[in-house]
Amino acid sequence: MLYILDLLGVAIFAVTGAITAGQKRMDVFGIIVVGTVTALGGGTTRDLILGVKPVFWVSDPIYVIVSMSAGLGTFIYAHYAKPASKTLLFADAFGLAIFTVIGCQRAAKVEDSILMIVVMGIMTGVTGGMIRDVLCGEIPLILRREIYATASLTGGLMFVILRHVGLHDWLVTMLSVITALTVRLVSLHWHLSLPIFVDSNKRHHP
Amino acid sequence: MLYILDLLGVAIFAVTGAITAGQKRMDVFGIIVVGTVTALGGGTTRDLILGVKPVFWVSDPIYVIVSMSAGLGTFIYAHYAKPASKTLLFADAFGLAIFTVIGCQRAAKVEDSILMIVVMGIMTGVTGGMIRDVLCGEIPLILRREIYATASLTGGLMFVILRHVGLHDWLVTMLSVITALTVRLVSLHWHLSLPIFVDSNKRHHP
Amino acid sequence: MLYILDLLGVAIFAVTGAITAGQKRMDVFGIIVVGTVTALGGGTTRDLILGVKPVFWVSDPIYVIVSMSAGLGTFIYAHYAKPASKTLLFADAFGLAIFTVIGCQRAAKVEDSILMIVVMGIMTGVTGGMIRDVLCGEIPLILRREIYATASLTGGLMFVILRHVGLHDWLVTMLSVITALTVRLVSLHWHLSLPIFVDSNKRHHP
Repeated sequence: MLYILDLLGVAIFAVTGAITAGQKRMDVFGIIVVGTVTALGGGTTRDLILGVKPVFWVSDPIYVIVSMSAGLGTFIYAHYAKPASKTLLFADAFGLAIFTVIGCQRAAKVEDSILMIVVMGIMTGVTGGMIRDVLCGEIPLILRREIYATASLTGGLMFVILRHVGLHDWLVTMLSVITALTVRLVSLHWHLSLPIFVDSNKRHHP
Repeated sequence: MLYILDLLGVAIFAVTGAITAGQKRMDVFGIIVVGTVTALGGGTTRDLILGVKPVFWVSDPIYVIVSMSAGLGTFIYAHYAKPASKTLLFADAFGLAIFTVIGCQRAAKVEDSILMIVVMGIMTGVTGGMIRDVLCGEIPLILRREIYATASLTGGLMFVILRHVGLHDWLVTMLSVITALTVRLVSLHWHLSLPIFVDSNKRHHP
Repeated sequence: MLYILDLLGVAIFAVTGAITAGQKRMDVFGIIVVGTVTALGGGTTRDLILGVKPVFWVSDPIYVIVSMSAGLGTFIYAHYAKPASKTLLFADAFGLAIFTVIGCQRAAKVEDSILMIVVMGIMTGVTGGMIRDVLCGEIPLILRREIYATASLTGGLMFVILRHVGLHDWLVTMLSVITALTVRLVSLHWHLSLPIFVDSNKRHHP
């Protein structure tokens, strides 16, 4: 079940990468490359830092196949239908929530520290999207006004709390994903944001 | 022979990094740093993900010396002569072709999966240039109209096909490099491109 | 003592990340994430490439705690006081100098090659700031006119020279940090720079 959720996260992030790359008028294969990098980037960074070898997608090519297929599918779909303009933000929210919790799961296998589990969850959740946006010259979603990293944090915290309580693994996973997703979608819908630097600091711009 | 081709690729990519950095009015040592990162970035990512230890240039400093020398040489040359304006694109095409095939070679030593060999080839080929362009605030070449990732893909496919056929290692390498290079140069010359998203999708820009 | 210097470098780089992220109007938790990535990015890259496992902050969570606290502290401080406009540049100079020498120290434990020690020092010193600037859409400091990578190089060279001379470890460290810091601050103050490409090359801009 966790495996299927992971593949779902990979497919969703590949779609966000493909949409962003497509908007930049990249060709079909460039779109597949960016989609794949977006889908596998977060987990790759996590596995490298945790010292998990080999990296998850090297030992199991299905991840690469799913990423590429999702990228290709997005490309074909976009030629026939016009995705609603918020598709990218919604898909990214799903990917963020799923990858955060998958990241926590993977870290919990090799790490005891609660801090590390949460940090690895956030890293897995936000890195793929960051790479996508930097590659495509977009402002990373994490830099926008609405709650983003905080949604990932709440998912991670929910994971370690529910796991400590002793709920079944699958229930811990689902509830944590729903928590992160809800926080992100609610903040997107009502344009919620946390406090930021005061305006007077704008004079510090170089 | 493969070693010399690898060093040639390193030198060429270092030149592209140095030219891009130089256009940004970076100083001589900054130019050498960006050149070196461009030259070694793709192979470093590949070795980390494949779990090859130590990373190729840590065990063999000649790679670092070649990168730095090429960066310094480019800097000195650019003070005396004016490189033709397409130098950067041509050099990058050579580096892309060589690094794709070197990446396939290295992956083939530790991996059996044809998919992984091709993926590692593309990763080795495109990563250095992506880092260069992102660092220098340029639009990555992979995002431009002309065939780029696809040229790397054709090189990788040619490699696995010829290797399966059982040609001599060196012949496999040369023919694959020539394939990738030809696809890229031809598409640059005639501004060829693959299908992209339809225009109507431009309204999805955030 | 080296440990405390390392934590100081981490805190300082986290502050630079938090300031840069804050200027982009990111929320408090996004600021902490960017601060942490800036603080830990250089050392993470170094440890991955050197094959040191686990990465330094995975085995010692105090690094993550210091990064996050420094990011949070910067956020709170910026709400009450206005940091002088050069704070970012000065803090980055301190971080660059400290991390360069820490990087040399760590590399010297597993590497004999003088070239590798200097290269690892520069990599540790400049990578965190590069990631910070790329993530925040700023022009990386290494791309600006004033001496930057060269300051890191002088610190690294001073380290290997003094270490070869046989000075006490702590003295080697302090003198190298002071060297790199002095070169950077002096060049910032008088806007010193090394030679760059001649103007005629501007026509190469794509």
